Amino acid sequence: MRNFDINEDPHRRYNPLINEWVLVSPHRAKRPWQGQKEAVANDDRPEYDPECYLCPGNTRANGVTNENYTSAFVFENDFAALKQEEINFVDNGSDTFFKARPEKGISKVVCFSPKHNLTLPEMDLNTIEDVVKTWQKEYVELGAIDYINHVQIFENKGSVMGCSNPHPHGQIWAQSSLPTQVEKTQNNLQEYYKKHGSNLLVDYLQKELALGERIVVENDHFAALVPFWAVWPFETMIISKRHVTKISDFTEDEVAAFAVILKKLTIKYDNLFETSFPYSSGIHQAPTDGLDHPEWQFHMHFYPPLLRSATVKKFMVGYEMMGESQRDITAEKSAQMLRDLSDVHYKIK
Amino acid sequence: MRNFDINEDPHRRYNPLINEWVLVSPHRAKRPWQGQKEAVANDDRPEYDPECYLCPGNTRANGVTNENYTSAFVFENDFAALKQEEINFVDNGSDTFFKARPEKGISKVVCFSPKHNLTLPEMDLNTIEDVVKTWQKEYVELGAIDYINHVQIFENKGSVMGCSNPHPHGQIWAQSSLPTQVEKTQNNLQEYYKKHGSNLLVDYLQKELALGERIVVENDHFAALVPFWAVWPFETMIISKRHVTKISDFTEDEVAAFAVILKKLTIKYDNLFETSFPYSSGIHQAPTDGLDHPEWQFHMHFYPPLLRSATVKKFMVGYEMMGESQRDITAEKSAQMLRDLSDVHYKIK
Ligand SMILES: O=P(O)(O)O[C@H]1O[C@H](CO)[C@@H](O)[C@H](O)[C@H]1O
Ligand SMILES: O=P(O)(O)O[C@H]1O[C@H](CO)[C@@H](O)[C@H](O)[C@H]1O
Repeated sequence: MRNFDINEDPHRRYNPLINEWVLVSPHRAKRPWQGQKEAVANDDRPEYDPECYLCPGNTRANGVTNENYTSAFVFENDFAALKQEEINFVDNGSDTFFKARPEKGISKVVCFSPKHNLTLPEMDLNTIEDVVKTWQKEYVELGAIDYINHVQIFENKGSVMGCSNPHPHGQIWAQSSLPTQVEKTQNNLQEYYKKHGSNLLVDYLQKELALGERIVVENDHFAALVPFWAVWPFETMIISKRHVTKISDFTEDEVAAFAVILKKLTIKYDNLFETSFPYSSGIHQAPTDGLDHPEWQFHMHFYPPLLRSATVKKFMVGYEMMGESQRDITAEKSAQMLRDLSDVHYKIK
Repeated sequence: MRNFDINEDPHRRYNPLINEWVLVSPHRAKRPWQGQKEAVANDDRPEYDPECYLCPGNTRANGVTNENYTSAFVFENDFAALKQEEINFVDNGSDTFFKARPEKGISKVVCFSPKHNLTLPEMDLNTIEDVVKTWQKEYVELGAIDYINHVQIFENKGSVMGCSNPHPHGQIWAQSSLPTQVEKTQNNLQEYYKKHGSNLLVDYLQKELALGERIVVENDHFAALVPFWAVWPFETMIISKRHVTKISDFTEDEVAAFAVILKKLTIKYDNLFETSFPYSSGIHQAPTDGLDHPEWQFHMHFYPPLLRSATVKKFMVGYEMMGESQRDITAEKSAQMLRDLSDVHYKIK
């Protein structure tokens, strides 16, 4: 009988953040692909697009005109999934099957730059630092609102990730409840903290830094790695080295270092298939419920859909939806591919 | 202060099967869509395609020739995510961060019909009954293998769902572990069973049949409904009316009735946007671990991606990945739209 070889044999890996498993099939990377191909991102965009509702000075669908902004610009989402209105709700007991609760919140859009044709990897560090500072400010201001207990900062990049406007921007959805994925994560972080008296992600990062094989890029304050339990082919996570529960606690040095690692990671992403690399990213950090959250450690997830080229993505479908997430290429192999790429953008090479 | 209106106000609904919430934003259905459009399925296919590796008599990539099959045809997946080989594994203790376990299993492909140009809604009932009987047989035979504890039957339909060949077919992944989603579901079903001494989905279906507003189609033995906690815009679930833990326990009448409801539901789906409606579907039922599973009730999930038309889908991206699933249209509205559609296929109207 052969001995188990993690680089060759089908196996499951455990994700301690959400208490779920992922099925890994390394041998399957060789299968041919005859299915759907994605459109390649159109890179030929003007710096200013008169038709874009996010460009400075343009008027949005609801008649409001954008400021002539020169750095990160924030406004309330015109088609918000959440509303601020106070609603009267009478709970008719805790019905198992028809449990519904009104949800209050605020959705905002954050334009990263006035320039329509840039994305994070192509921006200068000052611009990215401005974005980070804007996230800090929004986290603090939204979090200070009495009924807001969670602030979700995220970006959908690329049309394949449901982004309907290529102007560089992200979103913030702030709300009264902890969203499902955050609550799950918090439960596992808390359990670990109780059991070990230390922080799960701080401990994890230490081990990863010692091993090195899943690290993509690092600097004095942050590391970007492919987690051992990654689901998406080139999924990564940026983790702060210091124990920091929330973005507003970053020192000035950390703001600068975070901008650097954001730029380096997204450049490597673009370089992988020499395309504007699509992803959804999002920050997980302490909720804004006024409590102390030593179990949290600031981290940012990147979930990119591409698998083999600029046009072939991984489909999380039948088995994945009914059973369990599945990946072909191993986390170690993906990390190595990303690590080995230049951190100079392919367009300026 | 206004009173909460479930048809208008943002709210969260609770899914008791997996203990997760979904954010519902009914007012958001009106936002314009300028993003990615999906390709419309090409319906102009020949009954037999010499290039198709699933058509009868054709040779597959690995050199094997398909039988000249006339009804459902099963073979082992040439690019299986699971392997049957026995692997020697030594567990080095229970490391929190780097937990991996080899996984044994079998992946099969089930061709639903020899005809390349048909899909379930267009097949005659005999053909669909044959598919159901094939699922029964595979569930029993695979389940009887000593190390197989779970048999996942599923279908990816349409290129937008990662299906690389339009020839009507589904898959079966049988394996030693309970996949994450199944284990989660089983935990919640067991908890309910212990607490109430009755079956969660049997009780739920009774309430839904009494209310009627989320029922799409029903017959003597099955009902198809949009669950109260549905995530995908037109997500449905077929549930058996009798308490049946697994497909192999279906009576002959139930096999026939299941074929009828499969056909009616998928016809309504095709009629919704007058297109070959993409989805991932999958059966959840008792595991094949040799134990008694009164907590399970046979059901089949349908997760279709389309939202507004044949080309506009719902993107489960940034907020959904980091936070929580989100939908615009309510489950009640979707159910009504599907219920009101004809059960005669649009192509033969
Ligand atoms: O097995 P197929 O049809 O080649 O592949 C399809 O279904 C699988 C099971 O849901 C997924 O893992 C793949 O991403 C998808 O493309
Ligand atoms: O808010 P947008 O950019 O219009 O929409 C996009 O992001 C949202 C948040 O992840 C998703 O709910 C939508 O499905 C997606 O298309």
